[in-house]
Amino acid sequence: MRRVAVIGVGQSLYGVRSDVTMQELAWEAVKEALEDAGVTQRDVDISVVGNVGTRGYELMPAQPVNDYIGMTPKGPIRVEMACATGLVALTVGYNLIASGSAEVVLAVGVEKMTEVDTPTSLAVGGRAGNYLWEFHFYGTTMPAGYALYATAHMAKFGTTEEHMALVAVKNHYYGSLNPKAHFQHTVTVEEVLKSRPIAWPIKLLDSSPISDGTAAAILASEDAVRKYKIDTPVWIAGIGYANDTPLLTRRKDYTTFQATRLAAEMAYKKAGIEPRDVEVANVHDAFTIAEIIAYEDLGFVKKGEGPKLIAEGQTYAGGKVAVNIDGGLKAKGHPLGATGLGMIYELTKQLREERSGPRQAPLKKYIALAHNVAGVGPVSYVVVLRR
Amino acid sequence: MRRVAVIGVGQSLYGVRSDVTMQELAWEAVKEALEDAGVTQRDVDISVVGNVGTRGYELMPAQPVNDYIGMTPKGPIRVEMACATGLVALTVGYNLIASGSAEVVLAVGVEKMTEVDTPTSLAVGGRAGNYLWEFHFYGTTMPAGYALYATAHMAKFGTTEEHMALVAVKNHYYGSLNPKAHFQHTVTVEEVLKSRPIAWPIKLLDSSPISDGTAAAILASEDAVRKYKIDTPVWIAGIGYANDTPLLTRRKDYTTFQATRLAAEMAYKKAGIEPRDVEVANVHDAFTIAEIIAYEDLGFVKKGEGPKLIAEGQTYAGGKVAVNIDGGLKAKGHPLGATGLGMIYELTKQLREERSGPRQAPLKKYIALAHNVAGVGPVSYVVVLRR
Repeated sequence: MRRVAVIGVGQSLYGVRSDVTMQELAWEAVKEALEDAGVTQRDVDISVVGNVGTRGYELMPAQPVNDYIGMTPKGPIRVEMACATGLVALTVGYNLIASGSAEVVLAVGVEKMTEVDTPTSLAVGGRAGNYLWEFHFYGTTMPAGYALYATAHMAKFGTTEEHMALVAVKNHYYGSLNPKAHFQHTVTVEEVLKSRPIAWPIKLLDSSPISDGTAAAILASEDAVRKYKIDTPVWIAGIGYANDTPLLTRRKDYTTFQATRLAAEMAYKKAGIEPRDVEVANVHDAFTIAEIIAYEDLGFVKKGEGPKLIAEGQTYAGGKVAVNIDGGLKAKGHPLGATGLGMIYELTKQLREERSGPRQAPLKKYIALAHNVAGVGPVSYVVVLRR
Repeated sequence: MRRVAVIGVGQSLYGVRSDVTMQELAWEAVKEALEDAGVTQRDVDISVVGNVGTRGYELMPAQPVNDYIGMTPKGPIRVEMACATGLVALTVGYNLIASGSAEVVLAVGVEKMTEVDTPTSLAVGGRAGNYLWEFHFYGTTMPAGYALYATAHMAKFGTTEEHMALVAVKNHYYGSLNPKAHFQHTVTVEEVLKSRPIAWPIKLLDSSPISDGTAAAILASEDAVRKYKIDTPVWIAGIGYANDTPLLTRRKDYTTFQATRLAAEMAYKKAGIEPRDVEVANVHDAFTIAEIIAYEDLGFVKKGEGPKLIAEGQTYAGGKVAVNIDGGLKAKGHPLGATGLGMIYELTKQLREERSGPRQAPLKKYIALAHNVAGVGPVSYVVVLRR
């Protein structure tokens, strides 16, 4: 297979972005990514646009976005896989280059979630599974689905609300250091525990926000890396993907996400690495319990030891593995179509050692991992990056 | 590049399919495709689901569809590109195999358009471009957009309403021979001319219907073709794609679709063929004028000679090039996500010479072409198939 590198990345400020249209928003990430790579739209063969949509007035935004960002007449392919859309866009772009169909691909994710009211936005989110049987009949929303996992993990492994709160504390700490984060303030364990219940044991401060935002990555073949004289290419060493039934009622174990375990296994195998080789990771902390379960499903620790890992502070930079040190979905924000590419943005910066102080993970092997999940775990993508 | 073949195809009856859910509908094509290829879900590495959605209750249907058709834990990637979604699904699947990421891929397109009322469906369709500037401010719907092209073609080349009606007559004739077509009745020139005006010169019988339906293709590497002992693989010889601005106000010429011309050029070049080598084609006749312009943009005739080609009956089987001899979008139907893969279904059957009588195109070179367009031409995909 032809090798594929990330040669440029961009990301907008995440948050309430009523100051821009979706097209204008997308351009913020694309412009930065093109400049970062030192290429122009003329050098790009095709664009892949990740967008969940269904919320705003522009129901099929890939074409207007592609045109506005100056990519006509090339592209776009639009992909959607609920909250995992960003890494699906990366995967489709990766294969366009690995196959030889393209030399340079732009993958851009964009979402405007705040154009409609929050209940509508949440109702759409609740449909990212099996609408008819679970959302419609039983009222299973996204927080309720993750609450099932949280209570099962608590019952089986003694995980506490404090453990989950510690994830929020860590991610808000890093959000406070990230000028592109939706939330740039810290929170305390007490504040998380006292915040409004959403679906017990999940509280408001255990939940990621509804964000507008965009992120982009320029992917390139080895030939293109040479042609454009890229100093520090970040290679895509392995991509894994798997799904599970979207019907929660048909799952067998609520303490683990099978799709993530299978996807991680595939990604590690393709990259030829072990979980312990990962030095910096962005995992899908849509809710705090999801980060704890991700530690386990990605093999950073054994099953049931996730709470201990966060309690010991081992997922801060300098610990066993630095996790979500851009703030994660929890504090940086979660603009669905952009989220996975926002992870690639951060990890590329990390692997190039462009961060400073407490925001830079110490690296020896220069191996990073991104983990992007749809809904309550029916689809999972894991990408291993290597400098 | 690794070669990729179509080894199995399936398609449901198109039409008003209130007898099945979207998942059940998708299974009709997938089951037929798997049986046609002689493989099972276990042999498939990943699925690509093409769906436009935004109409029905299942807003993100790829996961429930993937689970219902027995593909868990593999896949899905959901793609959307308005009416061109089907060939985008094929393209993403093609690259997954050509890259070496997969050996066997299922591409399935599915759409339930009749779950909501027709005006809603048309309103969503009208958004498959630039919503804000043209649909919202000027009320440009899909038929109105194509009407602009029709009047320009009439003014420049003397094309008449009768020429367009002849396309409907041909495609309804073939629909009457196709037990899977939405409309299985013939129409006369007089009936077309007397049918209700939609956006002059486009009348009801110049327009493709709002259909439910599904189509699927199993794609395979050369290794997999050998492994599964496929007698008659149909090879994907070249894929071309391009876009144009979705803003009709910014286009320079309303007698041609630039995206189709560029996509065709790319596909012919990759396949190493000339337009005259194409013996059987499915082109995107969302409205009858679109088929006439497609003759020209795909290079079957020179610019302005499309009307003459249909007037001489040269696009019936046995003519210069057999076009839409399954009924096309016009009579077979146009379930957006399925349409492009429905073309692949028909052309695979044609290249294998599985049709009989007037429904089988006479073949010497065994070269076929599929042409799938989004909205009023902002995105075009052209696929060349070769036995």
